[in-house]
Amino acid sequence: MRLATIDNGTPDGRLVVISTDGTSYAEAPVPTMQAALEQWATAEAALRAVTTFDQPLAQARLLAPLPRAWQWLDGSVYASHGALMDKVIGVEKPPVPFPLMYQGVSSKFYAPNEDVVMADEALGIDFEGEFGIITDMVPMGTSAADAAGHIKLVVQINDWSLRTLAAPEMKTGFGWIQAKPPCSMAPFAVTPDELGDAWVDCQPNMNLTVHWNGAQFGNAHGQAMGYGFDALVAHAARTRDLVAGTVIGSGTVSNENFREVGSSCIAERRGIEIVDEGAPKTEFMRFGDSVRMEAVTADGRKPFGAIDQKVVSR
Amino acid sequence: MRLATIDNGTPDGRLVVISTDGTSYAEAPVPTMQAALEQWATAEAALRAVTTFDQPLAQARLLAPLPRAWQWLDGSVYASHGALMDKVIGVEKPPVPFPLMYQGVSSKFYAPNEDVVMADEALGIDFEGEFGIITDMVPMGTSAADAAGHIKLVVQINDWSLRTLAAPEMKTGFGWIQAKPPCSMAPFAVTPDELGDAWVDCQPNMNLTVHWNGAQFGNAHGQAMGYGFDALVAHAARTRDLVAGTVIGSGTVSNENFREVGSSCIAERRGIEIVDEGAPKTEFMRFGDSVRMEAVTADGRKPFGAIDQKVVSR
Repeated sequence: MRLATIDNGTPDGRLVVISTDGTSYAEAPVPTMQAALEQWATAEAALRAVTTFDQPLAQARLLAPLPRAWQWLDGSVYASHGALMDKVIGVEKPPVPFPLMYQGVSSKFYAPNEDVVMADEALGIDFEGEFGIITDMVPMGTSAADAAGHIKLVVQINDWSLRTLAAPEMKTGFGWIQAKPPCSMAPFAVTPDELGDAWVDCQPNMNLTVHWNGAQFGNAHGQAMGYGFDALVAHAARTRDLVAGTVIGSGTVSNENFREVGSSCIAERRGIEIVDEGAPKTEFMRFGDSVRMEAVTADGRKPFGAIDQKVVSR
Repeated sequence: MRLATIDNGTPDGRLVVISTDGTSYAEAPVPTMQAALEQWATAEAALRAVTTFDQPLAQARLLAPLPRAWQWLDGSVYASHGALMDKVIGVEKPPVPFPLMYQGVSSKFYAPNEDVVMADEALGIDFEGEFGIITDMVPMGTSAADAAGHIKLVVQINDWSLRTLAAPEMKTGFGWIQAKPPCSMAPFAVTPDELGDAWVDCQPNMNLTVHWNGAQFGNAHGQAMGYGFDALVAHAARTRDLVAGTVIGSGTVSNENFREVGSSCIAERRGIEIVDEGAPKTEFMRFGDSVRMEAVTADGRKPFGAIDQKVVSR
């Protein structure tokens, strides 16, 4: 089952169910994605019972499937990315026996084709292609084994970053405020069963194809997470209940052979350039630049649709 | 004007206006605190026009004035606390030309008398007495001068912390997830004008009295912030719009003469013991322990009411 949210002028939009062929939709029997997640046990059956899709999707204005969330927790579990970023930022972090995770702004997720408003071109504007999941309510102390059952939907995310601000904030130990403006979400939120063999051990078994200004920039594979999403949910829930509609991200998708497959963010490519050539040569994004991100399965399916948007000045 | 939220069985509760003498209330012409903050320009006049308070407050079950928020950003701007905590945690942080701030869980704020559920007594359960503010919508790039006008309400907060988990998380640079379960709020949210001379340069000119299991533990003065709340709002809004209902905290209230006035958290007292005696002797909280926090002005007013609650096992 694939779900989306149509812009109806309200902050939470209107939840819709997408047809199997992805060309049409039906209004869902539950008004919003947040409402569905708060009553998933009953909402799921009602959503799955929708079989008549009478509205053409091409004419719809789509928001993020969850346009705002009570909680956004972003991991960083692709080891090849983390090691390189530490080197670039100049941070020496001791290895820790738990997944890296920060809490970010969740009061807005950009729609997949919405212009992204950035404060200043000089701040090192960067994209970060990620996978994410959305939970129902997860009680404090839930184990990783039980956490898998709370992963109700899988999503695709662009975690926008301002790199000039990231290192100074990180060095305080407090995480990021200014370096992390709101993220974007691809149009479709997908149940794990719908992904079939593209979802293995709570990890995405598919590529994330990234284009920057029309040129392919990265095509890393998702199934290289140091911790699966089940472990991320359990980590987040150790000392707090996770509110229904909690979004948890993987961090930038990255593979050890990033020189071959490319990267899901500019900072990683710059890191490779620093290691290989002594200095970065790829600049960060400018106003007017566009980025397109689309996960593609081995059999050519694109379950989440595409994020395709432009960076603009405020 | 003082506002509170009555428990009516819904997540956001029912907004009420408190009488001047603090003994009674009236239902507000706007249903919830969040709704009031989203339309403050019009809501404020309607709230201030309430003059008949027909319900006795003593019989009401009060929630946090804002029971859940889209965003909670906590500063750490009392220098005497920061310096000592770095020493205790063993973190060497370079001085930075901006206020320290992390984003924490905001999907729940504990009611002032609600039992606080903690995962494990061994995690170093600690209270942190703070002041906070709540904003209406603050556009990205708002200056500190303009930010003052977006501070609509002042609140009093207990930022619960799990100290055993805090240092390892801080050392990752990603901030805190497990070390920071939900906070508590005192019952009344107060407009800055109501505070009179207890609100100076966007700082609280009053003491925060803290009792642990009935014994006075701290009585630090609020007006020692390295950055006022106006600067904190501007810092948070540099690269993002702040959603209406954003809560921003001061961090643990602390004074340079903490040996005389006491502390607003156990970790600070332990830090003093480490410095003075070579080792900490005060233990963290146990299940069943209670903490009471109440701000008191020079003329004896208690504008926010008291947080008075107990730590319990899940």
